[in-house]
Amino acid sequence: MKISILTMFPQLFDSFLQGPVLQRAIRKESLQIEIIDIKDFAPGSYRHIDDSPFGGGAGMVMRCQPVLDALRYAQGTGEGIPQGGNAVSAAMTPAGRKFDQKTARSYAQLDHLILICGHYEGMDERIYSRVDEQISIGDYVLTGGEIAAMAVSDAVIRLLPGAIRDGSTSEESFENGLLEYPQYTQPAVYEGESVPEVLLSGHHEKIRKWRLRESLRKTLLMRPDLLDGREMTEEEAEILEELAKERK
Amino acid sequence: MKISILTMFPQLFDSFLQGPVLQRAIRKESLQIEIIDIKDFAPGSYRHIDDSPFGGGAGMVMRCQPVLDALRYAQGTGEGIPQGGNAVSAAMTPAGRKFDQKTARSYAQLDHLILICGHYEGMDERIYSRVDEQISIGDYVLTGGEIAAMAVSDAVIRLLPGAIRDGSTSEESFENGLLEYPQYTQPAVYEGESVPEVLLSGHHEKIRKWRLRESLRKTLLMRPDLLDGREMTEEEAEILEELAKERK
Repeated sequence: MKISILTMFPQLFDSFLQGPVLQRAIRKESLQIEIIDIKDFAPGSYRHIDDSPFGGGAGMVMRCQPVLDALRYAQGTGEGIPQGGNAVSAAMTPAGRKFDQKTARSYAQLDHLILICGHYEGMDERIYSRVDEQISIGDYVLTGGEIAAMAVSDAVIRLLPGAIRDGSTSEESFENGLLEYPQYTQPAVYEGESVPEVLLSGHHEKIRKWRLRESLRKTLLMRPDLLDGREMTEEEAEILEELAKERK
Repeated sequence: MKISILTMFPQLFDSFLQGPVLQRAIRKESLQIEIIDIKDFAPGSYRHIDDSPFGGGAGMVMRCQPVLDALRYAQGTGEGIPQGGNAVSAAMTPAGRKFDQKTARSYAQLDHLILICGHYEGMDERIYSRVDEQISIGDYVLTGGEIAAMAVSDAVIRLLPGAIRDGSTSEESFENGLLEYPQYTQPAVYEGESVPEVLLSGHHEKIRKWRLRESLRKTLLMRPDLLDGREMTEEEAEILEELAKERK
């Protein structure tokens, strides 16, 4: 797939582009990524990127023309994008639909994902009506959309073929709708605290059951909302009933 | 305040540390920031940072010793931290409590915030019991905690004195519990789409009312959950009633 990121601050992505997982996805030819500088689409000098808001107020608002011309450029380049390929343009904004693992999985199926980074004082509203989606990574305000675009890209890229080792993603948080079970490594005792005995037993079935139980316990404790409306296996339902009894 | 970030990949923060808002907060002496390389706390070679999980499974798990020694170092340095200052250590993990604007505001009051970046395959569970908090920036899985730590830091830093222009933060999304009203800038007509007339009227009270109404409308449409349990002014309640009638 191809990811295009539109930003006024392309240099903020320098380190991100060197990340080991992103680089592996490029080597495996799963990923092309380009950072497009919105400033390149503003005629004349820097000040044409943004302007004061109509109706007054503090701050500056990003103008339609440079942002939408940059978007059309990204949509038009299409290098490496199959004909008839599916593309989504998404503006990063705290007012957007919440980004989650399900959206990450659907974006990972696209041929072209275009992410538009606003800066903190906002973009002209007419830009939003010309993109496919508005996406938020959480209920907090960032300086700009750049870190949000990194989060979205990272969550998507690691799902691309070859980006990370096989088997590493299948048992993670959210992939089965639950939080991940606790993990332990050497040493078996650290500052008096021991690893749960079952993990040292070598008994695969017991370990599987313990992990499922702890995964359910953690989810019930930290994120009970994830259990609402989730289809349970018979085994999961039984364990949840036991956990509910324990808590009484 | 001081922010310390513990990571196995300090170079991923190079561009982040050059961000204009972060740099302004440093110049205004509101912020000290340090990136601590967990690898510096692993004796011998790189492989001592992580190890295979007890009980089997794919991937590697970060070991207690280097992470917790790095944490103690961060807690101990205390340069520039007032005696008796308040500090919080938080591990970035998808299983954590959701980070939001309220948490950002409370972190911005701290003397010292320590953020610990795990990598995607997890940390030894015994680490989590030795930090103050576990924090998640959203329901998606990232390659590591680095982008999450940037998001948390960015949301906090922009609230520090002098980081951004006065007045810029007070009317933003979430600061009053609502999404921000639509913003418009030059030109008044873009590709046939006009700015709402009221914004060109110069009538301050009408503009204020329009903005409140559009802020409520956007919140009702995109994020009705933000209205649950929110204390409304009489004016807000009236507008919401009108909006509800419109939708019928």
